[in-house]
Amino acid sequence: MKKAVILLSGGIDSSTTLAIAKAEGYEIYAISFDYGQRHKIELVSAKKIAKTMGAKEHLIVSFDMRKIGGSALTTEVNIPKGEIEGIPITYVPARNTIFLSFALAWAEVLFCPSIFIGANIMDYSGYPDCRPEYLHAFEAMANLATKVAVEGKIKFKIEAPLLYLTKAEIIRKGIALGLDYSLTWSCYDPQGESENPTPCLKCPSCVYRLKGFEEAGIKDPLLK
Amino acid sequence: MKKAVILLSGGIDSSTTLAIAKAEGYEIYAISFDYGQRHKIELVSAKKIAKTMGAKEHLIVSFDMRKIGGSALTTEVNIPKGEIEGIPITYVPARNTIFLSFALAWAEVLFCPSIFIGANIMDYSGYPDCRPEYLHAFEAMANLATKVAVEGKIKFKIEAPLLYLTKAEIIRKGIALGLDYSLTWSCYDPQGESENPTPCLKCPSCVYRLKGFEEAGIKDPLLK
Repeated sequence: MKKAVILLSGGIDSSTTLAIAKAEGYEIYAISFDYGQRHKIELVSAKKIAKTMGAKEHLIVSFDMRKIGGSALTTEVNIPKGEIEGIPITYVPARNTIFLSFALAWAEVLFCPSIFIGANIMDYSGYPDCRPEYLHAFEAMANLATKVAVEGKIKFKIEAPLLYLTKAEIIRKGIALGLDYSLTWSCYDPQGESENPTPCLKCPSCVYRLKGFEEAGIKDPLLK
Repeated sequence: MKKAVILLSGGIDSSTTLAIAKAEGYEIYAISFDYGQRHKIELVSAKKIAKTMGAKEHLIVSFDMRKIGGSALTTEVNIPKGEIEGIPITYVPARNTIFLSFALAWAEVLFCPSIFIGANIMDYSGYPDCRPEYLHAFEAMANLATKVAVEGKIKFKIEAPLLYLTKAEIIRKGIALGLDYSLTWSCYDPQGESENPTPCLKCPSCVYRLKGFEEAGIKDPLLK
């Protein structure tokens, strides 16, 4: 069975990406990161998604990006509200590069050429490490970095099936594939109890989620 | 003062790289990794080197590569002896990519274009992620990955001043720059007490160290 390593945050995009890879017949190796994010609650969602979608393995790698800082997601800086322009303060320096590097290490050990990421540039295209030119450059680097690639046994491919889909299209696709979005988590700024929070509905991630469900004509099952 | 982020393992190559950057007038930001390596003792050396060489900051990032495996350095597989051919089992999947990714994140926060790595292909050229073509590909990727690069504020440069030096040349250079090699650690397979180990003198890293000092006509100060 062909394998796929999938970056899984527990949000809409990565969960849908996992559902797509599964539908394409891949055996799923999900990888998530406990990196000091405020919205660590997303890892609870990642675990639920990995389990309900039948992932073969779910690896959670821990490290502390708060020591490096530079982002509203890992420091005490206030999370912005609403839609965003330019590169926002929720950008985490080199985050996708770090995530993809761990995914690459695991993919090499698993002898798995396919690494899936839920990168998307339609609703919001500000993150530099979600753009196709970045993903191509990472792929080129990966094929020079690793033993299995240099020995010609594997050619790594960074798969980003959501790249040119709107949030509404992503949601419709996930629903069609049987994904349960009530298990996902998007909010950067969880409110209330830390074990059982509610989304703030104001941060950029909430706003894009709300807009996506609205445009898809579907009620977000996460909202009561 | 111009800044440099420097990958510092505590071995000969990375310590000499730090000494070179310092001699070139850079303010030193050393970064080391506690990744589940058997020879974790190298971090004690890294701390000593960073301190004695006057690093402005020394960041140690922790994560567990044993969960990913695939290397004799992070599993219970026996460490090989002697010189090596091809890509050895001490290769750690995507290790330099992971290390450089964290260095890149920190460099972005520090607003520092220069990232130094002690990569070297002369005495032993088997590691894919020490080759110049890999380092160039990482650099190209880094300049597409990050906010400061995409906004045109910084162009990241991966500096590998040891790339074409033999181990003997590296050691001579370090001595000339006042580096105290008694503080460094190279052995992959530390012997004796874990707090105060001795090098095995048989693993590839010991063998290349021994050979380097011998060719340089200098006694290794680590050896009693």
